[in-house]
Amino acid sequence: MDKPQLDRTLDPALRSWVASANAPDTDFPIQNLPFGRFRRKGELAWRIGVAIGDQVLDLERAGLVADADMNRLMGQGRTAREALRLAISRGLAEGSAKREAWLARAALVAQAEVELGLPCTIGDYTDFYTGIHHATTVGRMVFPDSPLGANYKWAPLAYHGRASSIGVSGQRFHRPHGQALAPGAAAIEPVLGPSSCVDFELELGAFIGKPNAPGTPIAIGAAEEHLFGFTLLNDWSARDIQAWEYHPLGPFLSKSFATTISPWIVTPEALSPFRAPSSRPGGDPAPLAYLDSARNRELGAIDITLEAWIQSAAMARAGLPPERLMRSNYRDAYWTAAQMIAHHAVGGCNLRSGDLLGTGTLSGPQPEQGGSLLELGAAGRRSVALSNGETRRWLADGDTVILRGFCERPGYRRIGFGECAGTVLAALPMARACAAG
Amino acid sequence: MDKPQLDRTLDPALRSWVASANAPDTDFPIQNLPFGRFRRKGELAWRIGVAIGDQVLDLERAGLVADADMNRLMGQGRTAREALRLAISRGLAEGSAKREAWLARAALVAQAEVELGLPCTIGDYTDFYTGIHHATTVGRMVFPDSPLGANYKWAPLAYHGRASSIGVSGQRFHRPHGQALAPGAAAIEPVLGPSSCVDFELELGAFIGKPNAPGTPIAIGAAEEHLFGFTLLNDWSARDIQAWEYHPLGPFLSKSFATTISPWIVTPEALSPFRAPSSRPGGDPAPLAYLDSARNRELGAIDITLEAWIQSAAMARAGLPPERLMRSNYRDAYWTAAQMIAHHAVGGCNLRSGDLLGTGTLSGPQPEQGGSLLELGAAGRRSVALSNGETRRWLADGDTVILRGFCERPGYRRIGFGECAGTVLAALPMARACAAG
Repeated sequence: MDKPQLDRTLDPALRSWVASANAPDTDFPIQNLPFGRFRRKGELAWRIGVAIGDQVLDLERAGLVADADMNRLMGQGRTAREALRLAISRGLAEGSAKREAWLARAALVAQAEVELGLPCTIGDYTDFYTGIHHATTVGRMVFPDSPLGANYKWAPLAYHGRASSIGVSGQRFHRPHGQALAPGAAAIEPVLGPSSCVDFELELGAFIGKPNAPGTPIAIGAAEEHLFGFTLLNDWSARDIQAWEYHPLGPFLSKSFATTISPWIVTPEALSPFRAPSSRPGGDPAPLAYLDSARNRELGAIDITLEAWIQSAAMARAGLPPERLMRSNYRDAYWTAAQMIAHHAVGGCNLRSGDLLGTGTLSGPQPEQGGSLLELGAAGRRSVALSNGETRRWLADGDTVILRGFCERPGYRRIGFGECAGTVLAALPMARACAAG
Repeated sequence: MDKPQLDRTLDPALRSWVASANAPDTDFPIQNLPFGRFRRKGELAWRIGVAIGDQVLDLERAGLVADADMNRLMGQGRTAREALRLAISRGLAEGSAKREAWLARAALVAQAEVELGLPCTIGDYTDFYTGIHHATTVGRMVFPDSPLGANYKWAPLAYHGRASSIGVSGQRFHRPHGQALAPGAAAIEPVLGPSSCVDFELELGAFIGKPNAPGTPIAIGAAEEHLFGFTLLNDWSARDIQAWEYHPLGPFLSKSFATTISPWIVTPEALSPFRAPSSRPGGDPAPLAYLDSARNRELGAIDITLEAWIQSAAMARAGLPPERLMRSNYRDAYWTAAQMIAHHAVGGCNLRSGDLLGTGTLSGPQPEQGGSLLELGAAGRRSVALSNGETRRWLADGDTVILRGFCERPGYRRIGFGECAGTVLAALPMARACAAG
């Protein structure tokens, strides 16, 4: 791949013959070109597409991929992805000779007319804990003397999450039943019931592209070769179930009922102008060698503005738009994507194409930047006021939470992530959950 | 399915025209008929087979399945599996008219001549903690005042495990590198190095057959409808890495480098004569309604003898056979398979065909029945003596651990699980794991 040509795909002067891609506020200018899967109405099979303005480019109909196997495309690695990006960019650029052929083949379809699916088959899903402000605030609630734990600044901590219940933006799920202690109960005796403390968690999801073979670690300098790109990720959590179940094995059913991601995977190429120094305050221990590199120190982080918005059922009924709950930035995470990948593989664990790594909740340093109601509402002790007069300690039935993310920098086009929306529905009747055995 | 006909498949007088299946000590008499995947030398694709004596019956060549999609077969549920079992049993029975046709089509192949693969595609892998004797012994090491935790007798605790690194019997893996505190180090400062404390864990793996839809709990009375069968499972663990990483999110890389299962899935039908009352001492709280049923109390457990054997590199060189480290019984688990399934789905988490649920380490009540070296060697404080003069606190390079399991009961043929063998290889050179970034 010729680097100057690739850099040309980021040139803010580059315009597309897809007019909506040239709007200044679009998430998907020709400089972005994120990958996803879609199907037209009436189609059963998913197809690989790229978002451009308010349209999707069908890569198969455009003659740019041979089939609809996204995981295989992801596994081809960075060089193949860069070549494909360049071909897409050239074909969509103003003045391209591809315009007539692609329109004739109906390779372009409006996003409003397609269903967007999970971008790939997700084998394993790992959720990290790289947001140090989240980890500190939450840790303090349980371990006031040592909120972070002795290992936090040495290792990118993580646990395995549930892959089967990951859905794409638009996911609607019932408030989960589970075991929890009744508030104020005298005896340590749990009850089964609908969670009273359903929460969101604002995260990014990093997808693995090139796999590593079992037993083969990934050096920090090679880690980003294995990164295919990022989506938004909402790690829905039931705090009352979590508090009761997490000792000693970590979160399980409190997070297994649903996880929502945005449909478009934004590539490292599109994010390259927004790289930033990784965040490690002076005085903290230097990372061990396998987690450290000059490039990671200087450019390991990414400046992505992240937001969580809420629209309650009452707001929707009244025609009120969603309102913003908080804003943070991925730049403030303690561990970088390269460090997550290098750590995950250091013991030989194999990462497969399409595997998903969550960053953990990405809160900012200020209290109003908490990436969950657990933080914004101080674990249920404080109400979050909505502008229509409603208040929230935890999510209510009918609440839709929308995550958004975007990169902005003078001299570059805005790169957006689209939306990651999900809705909490009322719990199913109890009888459905505890039917007689 | 006609129950008396199905019961006929368990009749100890039933003999097969495959002579090796009639040997009294075989794991795979005609009463067993476990499912797995295999391929002949030179074949690329896996095929569905059933173990019979020292042979494999190729179900496709026998005309009993249309394709090699094991997950689809698993998803068809109990009734379809029972019908298939009956057809296989009849075809393999002495005097069957199928004999000539199946031999002519080469539907029978020696196990020694095939490669056995993972029995299916494993989506999610969940590891439970149902072995109360293991949980008590291990809990006491970390939390002497409250070894089990307040939740243990209320909920079948579990965490998500790593699916990508699950291998089949014969798996060989390098001793993993990872972060751990150096023994006796003054400062809380980890180093990266090969684990000094690689251990085995003796478990069973329960495979999901019929799936449940997202948001749809599974009642305890219906839970076994979703169970396809069991394999042996070795949850290899690096104790030094585990001790450093597990707080507060649970086990991660200490168990992600490898997990080994036996190749044959033994079905609930084959195990039905060995059902036993579930194990819950008087005085313990009654399970919550969604985890309780009369059938589960009376027949929820299964009497399966479990063993772990070891063969060191020196033993292998000297031609010494493996020797037994311990023996326990699945009957002693605190939570049953039905309870694992009902609990996993109570919040709406969807279980897919081919998903794997580990039972957790199945130790017996006596100290010599520990299902790990952590227990047998008292966390490294005691040496386990091998008969050739070697000793073990933890596994050494070249050690092969072999898990075995079988059911025996007067009036029934022995039902065996085959072997689950895995070998610890020397760590890769450090430079491979922490190559310069």
